[in-house]
Formats: sequence, structure tokens, C-alpha cells
Amino acid sequence: MQNIKRIEGGVCAAKGFRAGGVWCGIKASPRKRDLALIYSEAACVSAAVFTTNRVRAAPVIVTQEHCKGGKIRAVIANSGGANACTGESGFAAARRMASLIADEFAIQERNVAVASTGVIGVPLPIGAIESEASALANSLRADVSGNDAALEAIMTTDKRKKSGAVEIDVCGRPVRIGAMVKGSGMIHPNMATMLCFITTDAVIEQPALDAALRDAVRVSFNRLTIDGDTSTNDMVLAMANGRAENPKIVLGDENFVLFSEALRALCVELVRQMARDGEGATKLIAVTVRGVPDEETAEALAKSVALSNLVKTAIFGADANWGRVVCALGYAGVPFELERVSVAFSSKKGSVSVCENGQALPFSEENAKDVLLEDEIEIDVRVADGASAVTVWGCDLSYDYVKINGDYRS
Amino acid sequence: MQNIKRIEGGVCAAKGFRAGGVWCGIKASPRKRDLALIYSEAACVSAAVFTTNRVRAAPVIVTQEHCKGGKIRAVIANSGGANACTGESGFAAARRMASLIADEFAIQERNVAVASTGVIGVPLPIGAIESEASALANSLRADVSGNDAALEAIMTTDKRKKSGAVEIDVCGRPVRIGAMVKGSGMIHPNMATMLCFITTDAVIEQPALDAALRDAVRVSFNRLTIDGDTSTNDMVLAMANGRAENPKIVLGDENFVLFSEALRALCVELVRQMARDGEGATKLIAVTVRGVPDEETAEALAKSVALSNLVKTAIFGADANWGRVVCALGYAGVPFELERVSVAFSSKKGSVSVCENGQALPFSEENAKDVLLEDEIEIDVRVADGASAVTVWGCDLSYDYVKINGDYRS
Repeated sequence: MQNIKRIEGGVCAAKGFRAGGVWCGIKASPRKRDLALIYSEAACVSAAVFTTNRVRAAPVIVTQEHCKGGKIRAVIANSGGANACTGESGFAAARRMASLIADEFAIQERNVAVASTGVIGVPLPIGAIESEASALANSLRADVSGNDAALEAIMTTDKRKKSGAVEIDVCGRPVRIGAMVKGSGMIHPNMATMLCFITTDAVIEQPALDAALRDAVRVSFNRLTIDGDTSTNDMVLAMANGRAENPKIVLGDENFVLFSEALRALCVELVRQMARDGEGATKLIAVTVRGVPDEETAEALAKSVALSNLVKTAIFGADANWGRVVCALGYAGVPFELERVSVAFSSKKGSVSVCENGQALPFSEENAKDVLLEDEIEIDVRVADGASAVTVWGCDLSYDYVKINGDYRS
Repeated sequence: MQNIKRIEGGVCAAKGFRAGGVWCGIKASPRKRDLALIYSEAACVSAAVFTTNRVRAAPVIVTQEHCKGGKIRAVIANSGGANACTGESGFAAARRMASLIADEFAIQERNVAVASTGVIGVPLPIGAIESEASALANSLRADVSGNDAALEAIMTTDKRKKSGAVEIDVCGRPVRIGAMVKGSGMIHPNMATMLCFITTDAVIEQPALDAALRDAVRVSFNRLTIDGDTSTNDMVLAMANGRAENPKIVLGDENFVLFSEALRALCVELVRQMARDGEGATKLIAVTVRGVPDEETAEALAKSVALSNLVKTAIFGADANWGRVVCALGYAGVPFELERVSVAFSSKKGSVSVCENGQALPFSEENAKDVLLEDEIEIDVRVADGASAVTVWGCDLSYDYVKINGDYRS
């Protein structure tokens, strides 16, 4: 990984990308930004992954159409309303958002992606967006301030700004990949209420960008679970504008491998930020299942543990209740032998082995408490001798999750 | 349903059944009962359904063996320890529990069922059980006091005693069915940390009892979800001792239909009690999905809604957030058309339609709040014109769920 350098700037780290955000009034006062734009000054190739929910919001359906061309170069996104379950007028509003940006920059509507996040079923006040379209275009900045303004404008219950950027060297040319992500509740493998926009100045063929994105999403966002709810509005969108002027990255070559690794690392970093910022989360939980014959089985086992409300509340309470871990393995729906299962809890305070061969190990409750009081907890499960290992990320379940989702229509 | 009469007595309502419970010391002080016994004075036919968790506790495996004979007439059950993940000594302990009861009553070990509930991975103090086996046998009572003592002895985080009994008339003979159930957390379709013991004085052939039990479980316990966790220890066990001296009920005859209906009604009543008593629950939620071509699809949709943490917290907060209901339908993994979906929330305060044709209906937030502040909430979803309808039961997700499961190793 020494070839992947972390840099500043988020989605503005890559050459030729600008971002910005304004308040247009979808969110009532206080005047928090609610409309974001990311724009590439040059044409792009693009790739995207969308929610698997059968109920898809209008902006998702419109953007899926536009993405077929593989040439998205601008994204307009709003918070304060999901524009889902809003019928024909919802579709018209989503299309209008794209056309507003197309007009501002004299580009094609089909080169603009549209995203929305917020409450389902509330009509989008498209007039408010129309009024501020020019102000939005004028808000674009090429530095981290642009990234931050756009990011603010797509946040809902998110408490932290989640973005990052990396740089790699492709045949002597610096190539940058930046990303921002929004999402803290309603998150589950397969893209739930999550918007992630990725920008890169790489010269890369579209199939290579597409393959790298799908691979990165598979091992990052699709292995994150906050509450098991998969939303109507998710998308991960990547745009590459070629401004790094590197030799073109093509499927399967050495640079493709490097680019893919960098994109994976960036996405995993964002996923860790998201898990930390899970609604009401006090702890990041990383569940690793090892010794499984194949990744699918390992992933099913790890997700079952990460998704268990009983495991999540135990970690919240710093309780080394490993029986709940084993129980969650048991209902994952994949075969394994209890007699070969071992479980350990770890954090930067150390590691406590609590179960071996499917049975209790003696351990100091005091040590376990020490380990589990940290804010980053690893649950390590070894199932047998297989070669595959998979990590899934999640968070604990706290009083605040209930508060956030019970007291407030989010 | 006028042919099904509710009666008192729980598992002691049926002739020839006695029950009792003692404190043997598995649970530390205060001296709360932790060992239960149900016993039929006559031989029985029996039927049972068990957890689908791949990790099965020792008592489950032992009882599955014994149940193959279809002649269980006694159940010994403890709380305070699940006897799961306890290795060979766990199996020995479970077998010993059965043999203790067999010795007390001079019956076969294979006619005794064994059940345990509590923390996973802790060895069972079998010595404590041995010491109190005679006291347990002596504690048997033929009236509701026996039912209540046995029930107390299998409760863990349960706050309410959950039992019931019904009477039907079979060719002029009164036939009674009684039941007790334990379980409030770690509950999910397919039998999670739930023990349910059913007694009946019916004369019924074993295949008929088995069929009636499977049918009743399918539409009751398997349609209950508290937190999505499926435990290692669940069982539903039915015993019929023939003391009602009715003409034998056989598969498919008229009396079988009546018996099945009565058993269904009893199980549904218990499920409603369980949902009300869900860990930290403040509200019972009944999700009904109508207009679906087949029951499987309806059940998948209804379970997805009842299981959604976001729906559960919204109901806790009395928030008519129907978008979360539609979103949960969307990730149920079965096809439907959003454009035909309607949603209403109801309680004894009335009904509020919130979504029609997949879009928002105008409604009074004040009325909706009034409806949702009640403690029994119905979420009614109509998906299309199909003939099938399914109801699934669950509860809201409250601060107390987190408290119960975060603060206490249960």
C-alpha cells in the first residue's frame, strides 16, 4: 500500500473537478445547505452502482438512464427530500434538476446525474431549486472548501463529514481519486441511503472504471451494515476526466490493478468513517470471519453477526457476550461446524479469546471490559481451515439510534 | 369462532396435566424459580417443532431424539442457562435432566423432553438440578397455580406471564388445549428463544397432532418478529393425553379442522402476548399485507416491514413515517408494483390512510399522532388485487430494548 498516498481535497483533489453547495430552501431554516453540485471541466467517462431496493426514487431512475451513456460529468444532489414515491411530478422534478445544470454549463442533460436524499413521499419543491441553480453553479470551488460545501449540502442525520482522497503514480504521472459520501442510517449491504460521488483525473477506459468501481463497492459499501434497512435512493457514481494525462488504464493491465487497489482503499476508508458515524453509534465494529472455504460463506457469516441487534447492544454495553456471536453465526443460513468455531474480541487495548472449539474459554471479565470500552472493536471469528477471510463493518446499537429515528422524521 | 371458548388454567386446563416449578439455584438470589416441570398422568402422543439455528443447544438435540418416538409426556425446563455451546458435558447434563424425571415417575427417559433458556456458553450446574428433582416432582399442581409456577421458572427477560387455554366441543365431549410460552427477545420467525409447551386432553392420532401443530406454528410463532435474532434453544412441544375421551381426531376429518382452528387461535393469542412483551416494547405492531397472489409473497413483505428498525422506531415515536414502510417493502426481495401500493395506520383511535397508488395522501398529522399513540398499532398494506393476506406481529424498538440488551448479559 506504500504506493497509495492519502491526500487532501476530497472530490476536488482530482484535477479539473470543482464542487459547491448552497441553501435553496428545501430544508427549512436554519439555512443549512441543501443543494450540491460536482462538476468536471472536461468530458468524463463514468460508472455507477445503484440501490437494489425495488422502490427506486425518481432521481435514481433518471440517473440510471443517463448513466447508460457512461459519460456523466456533473452531479446535482439535494438533501431534505428523497423525491421517492412522488409519482410523475417527481420524475419531472428529477429531470428538471438535470436540465438546469445542463443549461448552466451548456452540456447535455444526459451527462448530468441527479441524486436526492431525505424523507420519502414528500414532493420536491422544484421552484426553490430553479431559483438557485445559477447560484449553485457559481458556488463551485476547486479546493477542499468546494468539497466541504457540497458534502454539507447532502448530509441528513450524518454528524461527520465523510470524504477522502488518494494519489497513485501511473507511469510517472500523479493520478488522484477523491470521494465524498453521505449516509448514516438506513444503511445495509447493497447501497442503502448512501450517496457516494467519486472523482478521478485518471485517463481510464470506461469498462475499466466500471470494473474497478464494482470491485471496490463489493468489498466496502456492500460490507457495511448500520441497521439492515436498504434505501430507495442510493448510488455510488464515479467520474474520470483524464486530466492526469497518464497512459490510458485498461482492463487487466498493471495500472488497472494499482488503480483498483487505490479505489478499494479509498472506499474502505469511507466505509469505516460511515460505520463510525452510524446513527447513534458510539463504536465502530469490524467483524472478520476467517477460515472459510469461500468469500460468499464468510460474508454471510460476518454480516449475520454485524447485523444482530443483540450483538450490537452487547458491544454498546461492553459485554463480552460471545454466545450472541455464535448464535448469529448459526442463523446465517450457511453451513459450518460449531465444534471448530473460535471467537475473540479485540481493540487497541488488546485481545480477549472467549470461545474455542465452540465452547467457552475462561477469560477475565475485567480485561474484556477494558477491551470493549474502546470505540473501535474487532470481532474475530475463525470457523475452520479455509483460505477465505472477509471483514464486514457495522456499529453498535445505542439509545441514540432510537432517539434519532423515533423522535424525528428523517 | 363461537365454537372456541377461552378458559382458565394454562397448561393445567387440560385433564390429567399437572405443572410446577422450584428454585434450584441455577439463578443466583433472589430465589426466583428456575426449574419447571409439566407432567401428564397418562401416556401421550406428542409433536414438536424446533429452532432452525445451525447452533442447537444440547437440550434441543436430546429432545429432538426423544421426540422421534412421538410419545413425550413430561417436560423439564430450566432458565438461567441455555446449555448451548457447552460440549459433551452439556449433552450429559441434558440427558441427566431427562433421566431424573424418568426416575421420579418411573417412565422412560425417551418420554421426557428437556428445555433450557438463558445465557449461551455457561455450563449447567447439574448438581443443583439433581438436588431438587424430587422437590420439583412434588411441586406439581393440577390447577392454574401449577401453570404459573412452571411459567415463572422458565421466564428470563419476560415481564409478563404468557399462557392461555381454550375449550372446544368434540361430539359432545369437552376438549381442552392449554399452553404456556416464554420469550421476549432474540425472537424471529422460525422459533427464536422461545419455549412453548402445549397440553391437550384430546384423543388425537399423532399425525393429526403433528399436522395441526405445524399449521398453527406457521401462522403464529413463525410470523412473530421481535429483533430478527433466531436462537439456539427454541421449541414448541405439544402433548395429547386422551383424557377427554372424545372420538379420536384423525387427519382431515371435521374434528381435525375444529381442533386445528382452536390450536391456531390459541397460538395467535400467545403470539400477540409475546409481541406486547417484546424486550422494551411499548407497542404491539400487527402488519397485514393484502392483495398478494400468494401467502409466501405476502409474508415476505409483511416480515420485511415488521422487522425494519426504522419502522419500529417510527412507531415508537408515533411518527406516521410511511416512507419507511414502503422502503421496507422494496427490499423484501419479492416483486410488486409501487404504483398499486396503499398504506394505512390504525388503532382503536381510528385509521389514517397515508399512501395510495404509491404516493402520499394528504392526512392530518394530528390525527395520525392520536392513532399512533395507542399501544396496539396496525399497519395495513394493500399491494394489488390478489386473494392472499397475511398478518405478521412485532413490536416497536425503544430505549429499553437497548438498555435490556446492553446493560445485562441475558
